[in-house]
Amino acid sequence: MKLMMVIVQDQDYAKLATRLIQNQIRATKFETSGLYSNKKNVTLFICVEEEQQERILTYIQESCTERKEICEVWEYNGNMMVQAEKTLKIGGATVFISEVNQIMKF
Amino acid sequence: MKLMMVIVQDQDYAKLATRLIQNQIRATKFETSGLYSNKKNVTLFICVEEEQQERILTYIQESCTERKEICEVWEYNGNMMVQAEKTLKIGGATVFISEVNQIMKF
Amino acid sequence: MKLMMVIVQDQDYAKLATRLIQNQIRATKFETSGLYSNKKNVTLFICVEEEQQERILTYIQESCTERKEICEVWEYNGNMMVQAEKTLKIGGATVFISEVNQIMKF
Repeated sequence: MKLMMVIVQDQDYAKLATRLIQNQIRATKFETSGLYSNKKNVTLFICVEEEQQERILTYIQESCTERKEICEVWEYNGNMMVQAEKTLKIGGATVFISEVNQIMKF
Repeated sequence: MKLMMVIVQDQDYAKLATRLIQNQIRATKFETSGLYSNKKNVTLFICVEEEQQERILTYIQESCTERKEICEVWEYNGNMMVQAEKTLKIGGATVFISEVNQIMKF
Repeated sequence: MKLMMVIVQDQDYAKLATRLIQNQIRATKFETSGLYSNKKNVTLFICVEEEQQERILTYIQESCTERKEICEVWEYNGNMMVQAEKTLKIGGATVFISEVNQIMKF
């Protein structure tokens, strides 16, 4: 079994959630944020069999697209942290896949 | 060392937390929710020695019980996502166990 | 690639965040709390190359210091859970490092 950690932007989340629910994929939702961009996002933990992995990556790819957006960011001005506006590449999704040794249900 | 990720329903959480605290198990608590059932739950990250694992699984088993409940769920009606009421198996706990290479305290 | 899970106290978080942002380290921020101490803290997920690891541990070590503090804790008085005040060692950071098999960006 694998654990997929999927970090997805708020704007893309609804579309991805729909695709996963339609396909009976179970997941746990964490409300998270980016350290740098200050933007809220969602991190999904999805536990998958090896053979489901490709299919789920396709759902993510179809639901999450990278775009440019003006964001409030934290910057270090050499002296202190200040807020600034910057055009950042936002969205898309980041996926980490790692091993799970054991899954149990009670 | 192992990392146990324990997803537990809100109703079962108090009982499990009591058992863990009584037994001096340290954990980090994430407020999470189910993708499908829309219900809030709790995910605990517990880092354990191999030999503690069985004991902690016993606490989980004794604290978390599966039951049937009417839930609001998201469903895809072929056109859009709609909310519906459904009787779901709720509760119990799901546990993922994975390897941790290193633990450090500062 | 490695996944670093860094649990850091609220008081130390600002300092650590500054160091990470200054050094262009990306991270995902989870608002968490301790099971026992009831205190809010922050868990950062940072995905790093092997060779960055030492450098990030230095940032953590420099930002997070252990101190003593009076905390509200949950205790089991033999009958029920009660709140009590206790002097606890607080702060510092706890770091778990585990393997990541694959990282993908969409």
